[in-house]
Amino acid sequence: MLLHEKADQAQALLAETGLDCWLTFARETELHPDPGIEQVVGAGVVRNSAFLFGAGGARVAIVANFDTSAIRAKGVFREVIGYDEDIRGPLLAALQRLDPRTIGLNYSLDDVTADGLTHGHWLLLQQLLSGTPYLDRLTSAAPLLARLRGRKSSTEVDRIRRAVAVTEQIVEQITSHIRPGLSERELAAFVHARFVEHGVSPAWPLEGCPIVNTGPASDLGHTYPSETVRIEPGHLVHIDLGVRIDGYCSDMQRMWYVRRPGESGPPEDVRRAFDTVVRAIDAGAEALRPGVRGFEVDAAARSVVVTGGYPEFKHGLGHGLGRAVHDGGTLLGPRWPCYGRNVEAAVEVGNVFTLELGIPTGSGVVGLEEDVLVTATGCEFLSSRQRELILV
Amino acid sequence: MLLHEKADQAQALLAETGLDCWLTFARETELHPDPGIEQVVGAGVVRNSAFLFGAGGARVAIVANFDTSAIRAKGVFREVIGYDEDIRGPLLAALQRLDPRTIGLNYSLDDVTADGLTHGHWLLLQQLLSGTPYLDRLTSAAPLLARLRGRKSSTEVDRIRRAVAVTEQIVEQITSHIRPGLSERELAAFVHARFVEHGVSPAWPLEGCPIVNTGPASDLGHTYPSETVRIEPGHLVHIDLGVRIDGYCSDMQRMWYVRRPGESGPPEDVRRAFDTVVRAIDAGAEALRPGVRGFEVDAAARSVVVTGGYPEFKHGLGHGLGRAVHDGGTLLGPRWPCYGRNVEAAVEVGNVFTLELGIPTGSGVVGLEEDVLVTATGCEFLSSRQRELILV
Repeated sequence: MLLHEKADQAQALLAETGLDCWLTFARETELHPDPGIEQVVGAGVVRNSAFLFGAGGARVAIVANFDTSAIRAKGVFREVIGYDEDIRGPLLAALQRLDPRTIGLNYSLDDVTADGLTHGHWLLLQQLLSGTPYLDRLTSAAPLLARLRGRKSSTEVDRIRRAVAVTEQIVEQITSHIRPGLSERELAAFVHARFVEHGVSPAWPLEGCPIVNTGPASDLGHTYPSETVRIEPGHLVHIDLGVRIDGYCSDMQRMWYVRRPGESGPPEDVRRAFDTVVRAIDAGAEALRPGVRGFEVDAAARSVVVTGGYPEFKHGLGHGLGRAVHDGGTLLGPRWPCYGRNVEAAVEVGNVFTLELGIPTGSGVVGLEEDVLVTATGCEFLSSRQRELILV
Repeated sequence: MLLHEKADQAQALLAETGLDCWLTFARETELHPDPGIEQVVGAGVVRNSAFLFGAGGARVAIVANFDTSAIRAKGVFREVIGYDEDIRGPLLAALQRLDPRTIGLNYSLDDVTADGLTHGHWLLLQQLLSGTPYLDRLTSAAPLLARLRGRKSSTEVDRIRRAVAVTEQIVEQITSHIRPGLSERELAAFVHARFVEHGVSPAWPLEGCPIVNTGPASDLGHTYPSETVRIEPGHLVHIDLGVRIDGYCSDMQRMWYVRRPGESGPPEDVRRAFDTVVRAIDAGAEALRPGVRGFEVDAAARSVVVTGGYPEFKHGLGHGLGRAVHDGGTLLGPRWPCYGRNVEAAVEVGNVFTLELGIPTGSGVVGLEEDVLVTATGCEFLSSRQRELILV
């Protein structure tokens, strides 16, 4: 069971990251879905709850009495302690038993999937621990969380592979359907019907999944498909699409070119831009291997684009992919302040990343995105690469 | 448009709560859905983003360039400023223009729907504002958020009414379907099919919505319907059910009694417990009016239960109901540490609460939950009260 695999992984990561205890402190997880909870707890809670992993092997959950059944049913925590009115007593008792020198909490300035603890709840924890020695032993569990999330188990990789496979089937269906006259909105609706047909969820909220861009007048960015912008001959059609299967995501961009009467293929500027994007992904993949730092991989791809005379893409080359589309941890991005320390971290075996970038042209945006798995010696493409524009 | 209604309400609440500026500071809102964002922004963002409401009427959104379209499309923010690499410059410039003496942030020790800011993001904000006078002007916007969320507009109340109406239709369908031999899981699956039929979502995750309990051996609490526990003659059947329509929730509990051969109704102990629960809700509703404090309403209902010789229910009498099933703000609960200051707050016109409690019996749990709207003089039941056990 995946939950147990990840819990065992977390246990091993305590020693590796120098933590005596990992404490997930959460409440109302439907409103505040701490990314740590989905990794190792697997059930929501309402009232203040504490999930402790001790370096010595202890696993203790302290939750409201009405939440104990659901937590116990998952079987991850050997001890599930219920309370009614106040978590303070059982929490302090558990800490006294473990007596950890360091207690890692789920917060991070940079890594969003390691930042599940809300600020108010952090203040509450300060109150609960006030007057105890544990107050000064709190630290960030971000290094543990980044590795726990980033090092995908074979079960996790299999799920991502399945999500990629379904995405590729949908891309084939789009190829059969695409034609001049369709609005971006209509093409998105076609994809939504395919989600239902394949029994999958969109990887991000449906109103913006897929992103559809046709021609040079389309609105780029994280936006919604237009009702009025329609596919025309001479357009590049660009789709950014992801699905979620058994909790794991794909995230891919694919491209079509709609020929004008008499055209055998796209104009030269489109061809050159497309080729540059493909070569930039080649360069990123070539650089991607265990030990390399995130910004180095980004730089390899970025230099292909800049050398080609194009503007730099305004985002990182790749992000982690897993339970979340933006799965946190190491980021393959430039050293911009908005990315913080995520781009300084080293790539590890078992990481799954996107490799993605775009270049604007007079026929519309050229953008591609592939999904890759880091192996011992480099990387493996989980998606079947797009190396040619699909002609319509 | 509801988003604009709530934004106008927020603007007015700045003066009322003594804030010069309300700042929602968020990122990756799909992973960290700040409850402030859904109230007044209405679109997700990826990179560090700031949404400012100034007491003088300013409304400024600062988001990554690829997020500007979606935010602009909602029309709430008069200024939408895009950035690529670093939010610091545009954020400081906006604060310098507004020069607020107080800046309210989305955090609260007690109120979960006012606690959207993560701790890591709070630390990042400290870094961004370091060396500026704004660092010392940060405070909690919890009073604003509690009122914004708690004072439902007529649009919001209408949506909750519709959710309640569909829930009541599903309860009627359950009455036609319920029979000995059905497992809790089978009855839950019947309800799931009704969700699809009515085109509604469950108000909380499907695996635990509805909660189904039949007979004395059923597992109580926030748990999953059992495959092996089946309805038998002599059982109380209890369902806790909510649906979401246009983003707003219902949350109700309903009861059936399955007669044994020859029985005309439930045994005397069940009758007495059911009557006590009804009278406790009567007492809570009687106490519920603007100005009364949360714990006072809870106490009115609780004393009926205790006076009846039953054990106290191990939760508050009622919680706010709206976008979230547990909608935060004022809580109608006892003065237990786990509820913090939420139960000290005063009830206001336009608040929507549940009134709910349970009593265990030898035939299963008796539990009822109604949804009520606070009016100028008292409260109005949005749900059609259950005053008799439904006999099967």
